[in-house]
Amino acid sequence: MTRAPISDAEYRSRVARLQTGMAAADIGALLLTGPADIFYVTGFLTRFWESPTRPWFVVVPAAGEPVAVIPSIGVPLMGRSWLNEIRSWDAPDQEDDGVTLLAEVLIEHVRPTGQIGIAMGHETHLRMPLTDFARVRAQLGPRHLEDATDVIRRAREVKSEAEIAQIRATCTIADRAFARVPEIAREGVPLDRVFREFQKLLLDEGADWVAYLAGGAGAGGYGDVISPASTEPLRAGDVLMLDTGAVRQGYYCDFDRNWAIGPPGDDARRAHALLWQATEAGLAAAKPGARAADLHRAMADVLGTACLPGRLGHGLGITLTEWPSLIPTDTTLLREGMVLTLEPGCTVGETDAIMVHEENFVIRESGAELLSARAPAELPVL
Amino acid sequence: MTRAPISDAEYRSRVARLQTGMAAADIGALLLTGPADIFYVTGFLTRFWESPTRPWFVVVPAAGEPVAVIPSIGVPLMGRSWLNEIRSWDAPDQEDDGVTLLAEVLIEHVRPTGQIGIAMGHETHLRMPLTDFARVRAQLGPRHLEDATDVIRRAREVKSEAEIAQIRATCTIADRAFARVPEIAREGVPLDRVFREFQKLLLDEGADWVAYLAGGAGAGGYGDVISPASTEPLRAGDVLMLDTGAVRQGYYCDFDRNWAIGPPGDDARRAHALLWQATEAGLAAAKPGARAADLHRAMADVLGTACLPGRLGHGLGITLTEWPSLIPTDTTLLREGMVLTLEPGCTVGETDAIMVHEENFVIRESGAELLSARAPAELPVL
Repeated sequence: MTRAPISDAEYRSRVARLQTGMAAADIGALLLTGPADIFYVTGFLTRFWESPTRPWFVVVPAAGEPVAVIPSIGVPLMGRSWLNEIRSWDAPDQEDDGVTLLAEVLIEHVRPTGQIGIAMGHETHLRMPLTDFARVRAQLGPRHLEDATDVIRRAREVKSEAEIAQIRATCTIADRAFARVPEIAREGVPLDRVFREFQKLLLDEGADWVAYLAGGAGAGGYGDVISPASTEPLRAGDVLMLDTGAVRQGYYCDFDRNWAIGPPGDDARRAHALLWQATEAGLAAAKPGARAADLHRAMADVLGTACLPGRLGHGLGITLTEWPSLIPTDTTLLREGMVLTLEPGCTVGETDAIMVHEENFVIRESGAELLSARAPAELPVL
Repeated sequence: MTRAPISDAEYRSRVARLQTGMAAADIGALLLTGPADIFYVTGFLTRFWESPTRPWFVVVPAAGEPVAVIPSIGVPLMGRSWLNEIRSWDAPDQEDDGVTLLAEVLIEHVRPTGQIGIAMGHETHLRMPLTDFARVRAQLGPRHLEDATDVIRRAREVKSEAEIAQIRATCTIADRAFARVPEIAREGVPLDRVFREFQKLLLDEGADWVAYLAGGAGAGGYGDVISPASTEPLRAGDVLMLDTGAVRQGYYCDFDRNWAIGPPGDDARRAHALLWQATEAGLAAAKPGARAADLHRAMADVLGTACLPGRLGHGLGITLTEWPSLIPTDTTLLREGMVLTLEPGCTVGETDAIMVHEENFVIRESGAELLSARAPAELPVL
């Protein structure tokens, strides 16, 4: 069987890290409901999360091993994880969709005056129906629910060498696919065909699936970076951008590349050079002890008045985007082993067009180590 | 620009349907936070939902047009929708990530003694941080939050002809890809390569992206249906199953196909025939006025003691799985225009192996109309 090369020992050390944070926050059990948190603790990897029907739970007690409380359809897969305790029910159950089972496990592990941790902060969602959440709470008696976002963040933000190798492997797949874009993109090819063909390249190069592809194309730049592909053909003078979150063994890359369709205009060339220099500045600023905001400032200083609002990068790993955010107000301390993206964006000349650029890297003792192959300093021409 | 062929008039009629349900439930405004509900009302389609960072909101008032309350990065795309009122902020904002803006819009549209509807029931999730949800609630004064799952369900469950055409188009893409599986799967090919190549076939045949692919392969059947692909090569005597949720213009298919690698054993042939007959029984039972549970019973009666626990089908459309569930306790009334899957599963002979089968169809006045090409009655051999 394919198993992500994360050892049982590493899963145990992840749980130990969580439990250290839980102890400091006086949390008796941590309730996980989302795919990334559950994958982090158990290695449980499935695309079945795409179906919103069934809730899935993992409870991390203050000491000892996690308990999975999951629909029976997931028992064979969870049974191949390192977990020893799996409780299950036949979901969907309209009367009691895991509510009583989950409450029992929480009550077993948390004293009546204790606290149950759950992610409630930025970039988190509760992946279970609110009505059932209220029913679980009602069974917990005086046990208090506490926001455990920081406990989870502090553990997940710093990647192990095994995780860094995984992310690097995904980045390398995207590097190879980006290198093959001249095979699929040229003047006259509709953008939606480029999107389809690029996903095929990513799969061809070893991606398990393509969780994210965005991009744009337009005269001298593009309008936005989250729209689906249009059916418009690429035209001479366009700038094409592709931004992908491919996945291999549960680990993401998230970076982009730009190309000019035919010789680029001066504004587009200058914008690309500006983004490249901003990225250099971000990489230079990325050292242990710096703050997330420092990386934003380093890039924004280079971009000047052309700088786009919003964030200029973020964490990366088992979701497409993770904490922290490279924004002026995020004071997250950068630590060795954090994997981040730099994603500067700017307006192009005096036009409404924008351009963006993105790289992935890990913070080492000595500074940034790239995980994506560095983009060329000059805007490449197709 | 590519726009899904859903007219502004249809979006207006969707909102009118929601507003009729809201009036009956005395709901002054409906708050939508998830990708499917927001796509349903606005046509806003982006893979950017893959990033958990930013919350997105649409408020449907009791009368009049919806209001989008969204991060500024989404304004160009939402600006191309039929909506006229878009309020935005630069997310992520660690101090106030849309909380005050959202509360303002809700307060504008709901009187102090009124109710705000939100999906809280089965198969729904709140896609915003719990802490921010509590902060919004705190600003709403005496306004009560009411579960609006049924209001949303009743509207979304019945598909328009335009939606049925969209789902059929996606099913047709998968039909063509399934027909090409002999190009990619044979004895000796590792299962993970089959998964990659099948996703490439789906893209080649016109899928915008492949949101879901599961499957399995094993001697005379497979072990479960949600695991990622192993690196094991296909062997003579294996049964291979591929189950896909491809997406085209925001609309999903969700069906599977089975193949024998070399001549199948009697147990596998019989199991495939049994699943095919169970599907026939399900299709025959699928008429307006029947209940979801009736379809389960029709299939379970054919499957007998071989029947797997759990549901044997579900709704389909703008998510991979939607209400209702084909389980014994789901009494949802089947109505014309509902798009459903039949997904019977059974054990194979006396072994631990299982097999599953799935088709997609729409309920017409006269009964089931297939949207997927019907699988062959006999297990095909590769």
